[in-house]
Amino acid sequence: MSAINFKTELSGSFDEVIAQVTDALKNEGFGILTRIDLHLKFREKLGKEISPAAILGACNPQLAYDAYQYNSDVASLLPCNAVVREISPGRCAVALARPSAMMEIVGDKKLVELARDAGLRLERCLNHLSSRQTA
Amino acid sequence: MSAINFKTELSGSFDEVIAQVTDALKNEGFGILTRIDLHLKFREKLGKEISPAAILGACNPQLAYDAYQYNSDVASLLPCNAVVREISPGRCAVALARPSAMMEIVGDKKLVELARDAGLRLERCLNHLSSRQTA
Repeated sequence: MSAINFKTELSGSFDEVIAQVTDALKNEGFGILTRIDLHLKFREKLGKEISPAAILGACNPQLAYDAYQYNSDVASLLPCNAVVREISPGRCAVALARPSAMMEIVGDKKLVELARDAGLRLERCLNHLSSRQTA
Repeated sequence: MSAINFKTELSGSFDEVIAQVTDALKNEGFGILTRIDLHLKFREKLGKEISPAAILGACNPQLAYDAYQYNSDVASLLPCNAVVREISPGRCAVALARPSAMMEIVGDKKLVELARDAGLRLERCLNHLSSRQTA
């Protein structure tokens, strides 16, 4: 756990873990709106090689709508990113950005409150993923 | 200016301002990797209407690579978002997320340093956009 991310490690290939994370997020009402394959981007733009890493932009429409209606400044903090990185063959690191950490920098208590629900959902999502692995 | 965003207002339609912002970001080495049309998403998922608003995910590959090599936790803070919102017909608000504000929550001075270059580029980008309007 870091200040910014909920973190775990999961067994499975890069593609399998992305599918697992996508499913778990869906169960908490978050759809994946964007995907950036960092390793492909760095290869294409810089000719640099890194291990496979994807940034998935996850959004819970109702929570995003409530926050945006309250303060449109939050748009630049959307969506919530879920990052999957292959750390060894068949093993991936997963990091979900903590919404409350993001909202704290806006300096608005009401937004931090709104972010709490999103954060609880993401934490459940990660716990669910971790528990399935050890079951 | 808010703690989290560089902000300005520009004349032009929603599509025109998005094109202007995209060009200005390109001049500072940022490509647009993702786009979320919030108004379309809210309509589709919730049946709610808001003014046109787009979240553009901008990334400078070299700066992103340097930051990621140093600390892979930054991935969940990428890309830098540029938000264009129509505030009245022919008038849009533009907000660019301040990279250093994002990095400060990671609590890593080296990352804040790396974010400074990105921030200076985004600030130049916004100043350029604003000055073209008043010229």
